[in-house]
Amino acid sequence: MHPKTASTDHDVLDLIRQRWSPRAFDAARPVSRGDLLRLFEAARWSPSSYNEQPWRFVVTDRFESADHHTALATSLIGKNALWAASAPVLVLVAIRETLERQDSVNTHAWYDSGQAVAYLTLQATSMGLSLRQMQGFDVDRARDACAVPQPFVPAVVMAIGYAGDPESLTVDSHRASEQKPRTRKPIDEIVYWGRWT
Amino acid sequence: MHPKTASTDHDVLDLIRQRWSPRAFDAARPVSRGDLLRLFEAARWSPSSYNEQPWRFVVTDRFESADHHTALATSLIGKNALWAASAPVLVLVAIRETLERQDSVNTHAWYDSGQAVAYLTLQATSMGLSLRQMQGFDVDRARDACAVPQPFVPAVVMAIGYAGDPESLTVDSHRASEQKPRTRKPIDEIVYWGRWT
Repeated sequence: MHPKTASTDHDVLDLIRQRWSPRAFDAARPVSRGDLLRLFEAARWSPSSYNEQPWRFVVTDRFESADHHTALATSLIGKNALWAASAPVLVLVAIRETLERQDSVNTHAWYDSGQAVAYLTLQATSMGLSLRQMQGFDVDRARDACAVPQPFVPAVVMAIGYAGDPESLTVDSHRASEQKPRTRKPIDEIVYWGRWT
Repeated sequence: MHPKTASTDHDVLDLIRQRWSPRAFDAARPVSRGDLLRLFEAARWSPSSYNEQPWRFVVTDRFESADHHTALATSLIGKNALWAASAPVLVLVAIRETLERQDSVNTHAWYDSGQAVAYLTLQATSMGLSLRQMQGFDVDRARDACAVPQPFVPAVVMAIGYAGDPESLTVDSHRASEQKPRTRKPIDEIVYWGRWT
């Protein structure tokens, strides 16, 4: 069993046990347009408050348009830049923070966009794709790189591709992290029965 | 094929095609504690920024503690109250909006909690459970009902149970909605290639 496969206390979907967030990507292997479309189709059918669907995706593919890919990669901050540029695909997740029917705040826009990306992520896992999300990027640079208009806000950059060799990672802690078991709070720290106690 | 099964343009997981958000629940059929634990275990293994795991769940079960269930149901607003009280289980999703290691804002707390609930939802679908989320509830009443402490914020109430008879719904539009196909924006309105156009 892969060291990242979750050791669960209660039985859950294999997809959920097996999903994790790798940094090592195969830089030489592209992801087909057809496969990328399946990911966004999965996101598309996520639920959202008032069916607002506040999520948008800007895709940069190093094999299709290296300039756009580099532009988005350049927005990454700190150590993210060291590994993520080797992913063949980067996707900027942008969120509409206002409701379409009126110019007021959609309080659940980020929550709903998280749901959409979760569906996309499990779809990716089912297809043998690796995916890691980053919040460590410069929002203004990403907005410029991807030409994201108001009232959308860049929220997350995802690296997507096929698994690479962990030894290719240049940061010691990143190499080690690819083999360390995933950890989570115990379930009784996140679930309360009847009322919070 | 059930009218709610998504008619997708690109192939996606059956779980994602089949998931939808019903209002009709079987009021007489409880959900076992063991099955509920599997739902929260699925949420538990969701990714989050800095592995903060900002999500918390307060479960009220009409068969276990009718008082708590009624207290949370009473926080529901408008037409939600008309159908949701028949669900055997209501779950309040509460979100920690600050980082644990320092008292600053977790910008991705809602986004990450959405991801956790998405995993929980697909787990529920795989187990034949119905689940519908609501943002239409009184936050202060829900906080009181479930004794949610600061710095957590009530975000969503979920109704969970087994499918019921749509004809049992008292609101005409709710009955009709159980049979209407799900709709989404076309994929080219949510995905841009290279940069936003």
